[in-house]
Amino acid sequence: MKLICSKQNLLYGVNIVSKAVPTRTTMAILECILIDASTNEIKLTANDMELGIETKIEGQIEERGIIALDAKIFSEIVRKLPDSDVTIETDSNFKTTITCEKAKFNIVGKSGDDFSYIPFIERNESVHISQFTLKEVIRQTIFSIADNDNNKLMTGELFEINENELKVVSLDGHRISIRKIQLKENYEHKKVVVPGKTLQEVSKILPGNADSEVDIYITENHIVFEFDNTTVVSRLIEGEYFKIEQMLSSDYETKVKINKRELLDCIDRATLLVKEGDKKPIIMNVTDDSVQLKINSFIGSMDEEIDVKKDGKDILIGFNPKFFIDALRVIDDEEVALYMVNPKAPCFIKDDDETYIYLILPVNFNAAAN
Amino acid sequence: MKLICSKQNLLYGVNIVSKAVPTRTTMAILECILIDASTNEIKLTANDMELGIETKIEGQIEERGIIALDAKIFSEIVRKLPDSDVTIETDSNFKTTITCEKAKFNIVGKSGDDFSYIPFIERNESVHISQFTLKEVIRQTIFSIADNDNNKLMTGELFEINENELKVVSLDGHRISIRKIQLKENYEHKKVVVPGKTLQEVSKILPGNADSEVDIYITENHIVFEFDNTTVVSRLIEGEYFKIEQMLSSDYETKVKINKRELLDCIDRATLLVKEGDKKPIIMNVTDDSVQLKINSFIGSMDEEIDVKKDGKDILIGFNPKFFIDALRVIDDEEVALYMVNPKAPCFIKDDDETYIYLILPVNFNAAAN
Repeated sequence: MKLICSKQNLLYGVNIVSKAVPTRTTMAILECILIDASTNEIKLTANDMELGIETKIEGQIEERGIIALDAKIFSEIVRKLPDSDVTIETDSNFKTTITCEKAKFNIVGKSGDDFSYIPFIERNESVHISQFTLKEVIRQTIFSIADNDNNKLMTGELFEINENELKVVSLDGHRISIRKIQLKENYEHKKVVVPGKTLQEVSKILPGNADSEVDIYITENHIVFEFDNTTVVSRLIEGEYFKIEQMLSSDYETKVKINKRELLDCIDRATLLVKEGDKKPIIMNVTDDSVQLKINSFIGSMDEEIDVKKDGKDILIGFNPKFFIDALRVIDDEEVALYMVNPKAPCFIKDDDETYIYLILPVNFNAAAN
Repeated sequence: MKLICSKQNLLYGVNIVSKAVPTRTTMAILECILIDASTNEIKLTANDMELGIETKIEGQIEERGIIALDAKIFSEIVRKLPDSDVTIETDSNFKTTITCEKAKFNIVGKSGDDFSYIPFIERNESVHISQFTLKEVIRQTIFSIADNDNNKLMTGELFEINENELKVVSLDGHRISIRKIQLKENYEHKKVVVPGKTLQEVSKILPGNADSEVDIYITENHIVFEFDNTTVVSRLIEGEYFKIEQMLSSDYETKVKINKRELLDCIDRATLLVKEGDKKPIIMNVTDDSVQLKINSFIGSMDEEIDVKKDGKDILIGFNPKFFIDALRVIDDEEVALYMVNPKAPCFIKDDDETYIYLILPVNFNAAAN
């Protein structure tokens, strides 16, 4: 194989596919990036068996061929090359020479035949969504997937398509995040659970232009994201996702309208008194026209009052401050509305149209001690 | 004690003195920042017994007093406060209330009387140097102090003043860095070894203006840096510094003039083939008009040629690539001169006036295997 391409194109492609290289694996071949120039295009591929990424780069093929190169070494070499044309040449023993200006690297690759190609997925109807919107909706929900494998379904996000609406849901047993996106067309009903890791990596490599689109193909076992010159193929998580409808109620006893920035800054300040692993709640005392926030820990205490507009009853309720911070950080509205029923029932942060709903379970606390 | 000052002033002061708070100590009081408002100025102090920093901040004292507050908690609180006036108030039990707008923190401090004040140093003649120059000379030499305590003197830097010249030297047994600075006045001869940690912290807190000066006082056991509203007092390292003059020779067999950027980039690229702990040398093969650089490791090999101007003999010599990278990074010249004698004698990187000299010992290598 012999090919020539610009350092920039090569680096762009390597950075994209590297996201699918597993950090730990017993199969050495998976730690490689496959360079496939066996046809008339140059394709880079990486695959950790759950998630596969392929991207095409511009370049000139002087001799067709295919080689698998250690992803870490190869990407470090490419990163440090001068900004010029790069020549990659291999011999029959997989000895690979990478030349750029006067710099010449020799490394040993592996046979491309041993590489696990990403599965071929029959393309059906695709869902179109702007890169920006997809990137945003992942950011706005990904934080509430579970961080351990105890329940596999909680490590993914529900993607549900109903006509012209995409609903994305994540939950970890203490909170639920829901975002609804309007699509430009109507689609068949689809409901799948996409691994959180896949979404995190897709979100990292998506350029995120509002003008460019992503095509999403969904099959029984796989989801495919196609954009620019890149294809991401991921397995889906099997099983029936949680029925969340029964947890969503529009009844409330207390409604609070509050400045988002003020609330976020206040809770953020309060958390510095809480050491990791220490489960101190932030306590909200909602009265007419104001919320008093209070935290009490071994280190010290903090309290602060924020002016609000309140409808309904007074309430004294405690939360894990991190859950509030996570949700408030991804809401763009200047003012948010909190809906509460009682100190043991979930609090909802949502807008009037319910384009977003963040449900947070309260925590018990000893009112006397606080 | 009760005092009021802006969040910005307070944060600025806290960030400065925090550099002297030890990360690990058995004396809890040393983990504190002392706020001393017992006279008509507000002074913040921290002290790890080797290094003490004191800085004065603007503010209004409503009630004189003194308190020691846990540095980590206090600085986190200050950092997260709204950008407004901060009131700090203490009671006789050292209970401290920090109020800013509607936020109110309560933490418990310690008696200021238990705090180890920084030692009083008799001020003698001071040496004046611009903040920028001091910061630069530290950056240009600090990397070659020893990273372990086996030889205490190697963990510091020699500061030697001869008339109107300041000479700064650091060495770790494999290399020596020397910088000479012209001062505006003549001073008495002085020769002391300053702890590397002190210099690192001074360099971090120095604003580094070319127009502002630092006054340096040197006594038998201490060095004091005074600038803006800040005083840094540090113990000196005791003992006689190494005699380096005998290692500096102006004889050479080979002189190479080389583009600094090209050489640095090339060695930087080569090092990616060397894993940490792996001691692979970079081998320079100096012939007429060019240097060939070569590295060979378990991962692969690299070679590259750079055009140079050479005087004298050809030479084949090997180095620890890191030592070259460290030295080249802090040299501002576009072209550097390397002086070599033989493959076992040190290489010198220096300018014509010897305002800088970087001495690097070569390493043995098996020429046949490379």
